[in-house]
Amino acid sequence: MTLNKQIVLDRKPSGKLTVDCFRTQSSPVGDPGPGEVLCRTLLLSLDPANRAWMQGATYRGEVHAGTVMPGFTLAEVVASNDIKFKAGDLVEGDGGWQQYFVSPAKGLQKRVRLEPLSHLMSVLGVTGKTAYCGLLDIGKPQPGETVVVSAAAGATGSIAAQIAKIKGAYVVGIAGGPEKCRWLVDELGLDDAIDHREGNVYATLKARCPKGVDVYFDNTGGPILEAVLSRMNLNGRIVCCGVVSQYDTANPASGPRGIPGLLVTKRIKMQGFIVMDYVKLLPQAEKDLAKWMAEGKLKVAEDIIDGLDQAPAGLVGLLAGENRGKRMIRVAD
Amino acid sequence: MTLNKQIVLDRKPSGKLTVDCFRTQSSPVGDPGPGEVLCRTLLLSLDPANRAWMQGATYRGEVHAGTVMPGFTLAEVVASNDIKFKAGDLVEGDGGWQQYFVSPAKGLQKRVRLEPLSHLMSVLGVTGKTAYCGLLDIGKPQPGETVVVSAAAGATGSIAAQIAKIKGAYVVGIAGGPEKCRWLVDELGLDDAIDHREGNVYATLKARCPKGVDVYFDNTGGPILEAVLSRMNLNGRIVCCGVVSQYDTANPASGPRGIPGLLVTKRIKMQGFIVMDYVKLLPQAEKDLAKWMAEGKLKVAEDIIDGLDQAPAGLVGLLAGENRGKRMIRVAD
Repeated sequence: MTLNKQIVLDRKPSGKLTVDCFRTQSSPVGDPGPGEVLCRTLLLSLDPANRAWMQGATYRGEVHAGTVMPGFTLAEVVASNDIKFKAGDLVEGDGGWQQYFVSPAKGLQKRVRLEPLSHLMSVLGVTGKTAYCGLLDIGKPQPGETVVVSAAAGATGSIAAQIAKIKGAYVVGIAGGPEKCRWLVDELGLDDAIDHREGNVYATLKARCPKGVDVYFDNTGGPILEAVLSRMNLNGRIVCCGVVSQYDTANPASGPRGIPGLLVTKRIKMQGFIVMDYVKLLPQAEKDLAKWMAEGKLKVAEDIIDGLDQAPAGLVGLLAGENRGKRMIRVAD
Repeated sequence: MTLNKQIVLDRKPSGKLTVDCFRTQSSPVGDPGPGEVLCRTLLLSLDPANRAWMQGATYRGEVHAGTVMPGFTLAEVVASNDIKFKAGDLVEGDGGWQQYFVSPAKGLQKRVRLEPLSHLMSVLGVTGKTAYCGLLDIGKPQPGETVVVSAAAGATGSIAAQIAKIKGAYVVGIAGGPEKCRWLVDELGLDDAIDHREGNVYATLKARCPKGVDVYFDNTGGPILEAVLSRMNLNGRIVCCGVVSQYDTANPASGPRGIPGLLVTKRIKMQGFIVMDYVKLLPQAEKDLAKWMAEGKLKVAEDIIDGLDQAPAGLVGLLAGENRGKRMIRVAD
């Protein structure tokens, strides 16, 4: 009998997430019932939102203690009791932190294999498409406008910032630490980068974005949102993508000062979204992203960690900002 | 020589606005230069935003101590050095808290006289058009949706709430005190009203809006926004019109908890606006508002106080919520 290694959320974190909130267990690989599919996990996505799921219901239900930690996965079909899938198919779905999982067929989407497979988790996966849809549908950057992206060295931010450059904007990334900032400018070609760990993001923004900010792609919320909010131009757009500053805590802070007053004064639009809202735009997103990569306009940073056992430490480190680009776990080849 | 009575902002309030922040003075009526117009104030609008102007720059410059308090006015032309205006014309513009004012011609708009004149300050003026444009362009209420309006007994809120009813929504007003709440339901025909002074707006909203909230027309910000935010439905729209909870203080509070997290989770749009953004929509707004009034679908509440001297106390009282509908000062007949 094949055993399935699983990582379970053993207890909810009371403050910051630590690796001892998780435990590993083995259980028999499940048997797919009618309409179900047995899959073997290849790649597991680690996302800051994983931590938010522990705070309560978000765009998905709350994650409770005692359950296998959920997570987005790229997997291979082992056995299928549904006509739409057959053994060997490549699929994506919420397989969770485990080597094998059984899923209803309707919870899986077939993907075409490509090299490297990891691109299906990064630029051509949820994060790349999130950056594309949010920036272009809500942010709508125009040539010459100033676009600011927070967590710009992260999975989604690094793509969003580059797409803004492709669209002709003046792009400033906000990231933690001088190395990331140098990388944003030297490697990804951003116009400027601000290290929020140096403090006083408001004053730095004022100096570096003298024409104000037209589009803010917000991955962080919190004090960075507050600083950017005060520098927004008339008719500015704030793309609310994520709130990583408020995930790793049991007590998310109040919102920035000035909300909603500044929204009125400057006629700002703040809009939240998740990528699943953009079913119709996704084919175009994949096509454009692939084309920009092929043309060398879009660079992809991936941060691949080997072994399911590394998932807890990988997520804790992600929340501390140690990644550059898209972090994922290689569970199997 | 005719004297011009003026009310000056003598000093900025350090906390809540009090009448002793103002002083009265008399000065000679000004002489219009080339391209200028001398006007006699008839009606002076009192708006919660008057207090926000003292906090700093908003959609207009900050009001500094020692200057005649600005304010929106309906006035009659006394003498004109511009070809577009002649004595006797009815005009609107920022005449301020004084009996006479001189304005560049381009700062004035001509209005057609109607009875009662006060409608040009309420339903057919800035507040009515603000309600119309914000609710219909940003909120876009659909038949059967739930619309919540805060400061619903106020000038803008009372119109916005009724327009939402006209558009077929289930409309719940939030106001301070049982009399206002009864008035909203019995006189204006709202479906329900919540007295925020009773506390726990969140729980009350949960009970009274069991299907959640699709559109929130926000005049208050602060704790009421926080409560409504948590009850918003997927794809909800928050029309950011005003922030009266944060005007009468030197230290506006931080924003609600959950911003921008809830915006992401529920794909909410928050958008600020001011009525001047909607030049193209205004003719239609005036036409519709007049028609709805004529059909008896839209009731207009006005709160007219006689005498320029009453302006300071009138504004202080407005900030405390003592008005029902549009408060204005009748400066002259």
